[in-house]
Amino acid sequence: MPLQRIDLMVGRSPSARKAIAEAIHQSLVETIGVPEKDRFQIITQHDRDGLLFAPEYLGVHHENPVLVQITLNIGRTLEQKQRLYHRMAELVAAAGVSPNDLIVNLVEVTKEGWSFGDGKAQYAPATPAT
Amino acid sequence: MPLQRIDLMVGRSPSARKAIAEAIHQSLVETIGVPEKDRFQIITQHDRDGLLFAPEYLGVHHENPVLVQITLNIGRTLEQKQRLYHRMAELVAAAGVSPNDLIVNLVEVTKEGWSFGDGKAQYAPATPAT
Amino acid sequence: MPLQRIDLMVGRSPSARKAIAEAIHQSLVETIGVPEKDRFQIITQHDRDGLLFAPEYLGVHHENPVLVQITLNIGRTLEQKQRLYHRMAELVAAAGVSPNDLIVNLVEVTKEGWSFGDGKAQYAPATPAT
Repeated sequence: MPLQRIDLMVGRSPSARKAIAEAIHQSLVETIGVPEKDRFQIITQHDRDGLLFAPEYLGVHHENPVLVQITLNIGRTLEQKQRLYHRMAELVAAAGVSPNDLIVNLVEVTKEGWSFGDGKAQYAPATPAT
Repeated sequence: MPLQRIDLMVGRSPSARKAIAEAIHQSLVETIGVPEKDRFQIITQHDRDGLLFAPEYLGVHHENPVLVQITLNIGRTLEQKQRLYHRMAELVAAAGVSPNDLIVNLVEVTKEGWSFGDGKAQYAPATPAT
Repeated sequence: MPLQRIDLMVGRSPSARKAIAEAIHQSLVETIGVPEKDRFQIITQHDRDGLLFAPEYLGVHHENPVLVQITLNIGRTLEQKQRLYHRMAELVAAAGVSPNDLIVNLVEVTKEGWSFGDGKAQYAPATPAT
C-alpha cells in the first residue's frame, strides 16, 4: 500500500540506488507493519538542476539529498512515524546516504484509495448489498 | 481537477502510452463525473531499475505494472471508487495493460487546493467580502 | 516543509527553469510564511507526449503548462491560498510562464509527516515520555 516515490540526484550507482530503495522498504516493514510484498517504488534520478534545495534547514545540512515521499494509509501514531524516520535513516546509511540527506514526507490516504490490480479495491470494507 | 500521474516502464510504444492515458481519463469521465476537458496527465517512463515491485501482492501478479496516482477532490463514495477501478481496468486492457498490472492510488484534497491558471482558485467558494 | 513538484515540457532553458522554481518558492515565502531555507523542489521535464492536457478548461487556455504540486502542512486559510496562487502567477510571469499556464495543486498533510534529515520528525510535537 505505500506508494514510495524516491527522488535523488544522478551519480549514485545502480546498485546503490537499489540498496537505498531496499533500505527504505525495509524500514517500512520493520516499523509500521508494511507487508514485505507490499512494495511499490518509483525511483527517479535528476540532474543537479532538477533538485533544488537550501544547503541547510533547521540546522540539518543537505548536500546530496534523497527525497522520499510515501503515500500510505492513515492511522500510524506519531511514535510509529518517529521510529520509521529513525530506522530509515539508519538503514539508508549503509547504502551510502548520510542521515542528514534523507528527507521524508508522508501523505496519508484512506483504505478505499487503493487498487492493487484486477480493478478491485482490495483494502476497502465489503460493499453493502444494494 | 484530477492531477493524474502515470508511471510505467519503458517498452510501451508512444501510441500505447497515449491510449493508456486516454483510457485512464475516460474512466474518470465515465464513473466519477470528471469533465472531459479537466485533463491533466503526467506520464513518466522508467527503466526497469526505476520501478521496483514484488511479483505478487494480495494474490495479484505484477509483471509490467502501470502505477496511477490521482489527486482529486474529496467526496466520492466507496461505490464510485470501485466503479472507477473496475472501469479503468477494463479500458486500459484495450490499450495493452493487463488488469492485474493496473495499480491505482487516490489522494483526496479540498476544492480550495486547485488553481487552473490565471492565479485564481476556480473551485473555491466565493471569498467573503472583507 | 513544502515539497514542491514542478512538471513542465522540454524547451525552456536551464536558466528559465531555475527562474520558474525560484518564483514559485518566493511566492510561498511571501504569502504563506514558508521559511526561505525551507526549499525542496523537484523539477522534471517531459516530452510533449509526457504531459497531456486539454487546450482549455474553465475558460482558461493552456499551451505550455507548468504543473506545480505542493505538499504542505494543513492550516492555511482560503484567503492565504488565493494570495498564493495570485502571487505565484505574477512571479512566474517574469520567468516566461503565462498566468494561464500555471496549474497549481496543494496536498495538505500533518506536521508529523515530515523528516528533514537525521531520522527525526522536526515538526512533530514533543513525544510524551513513555
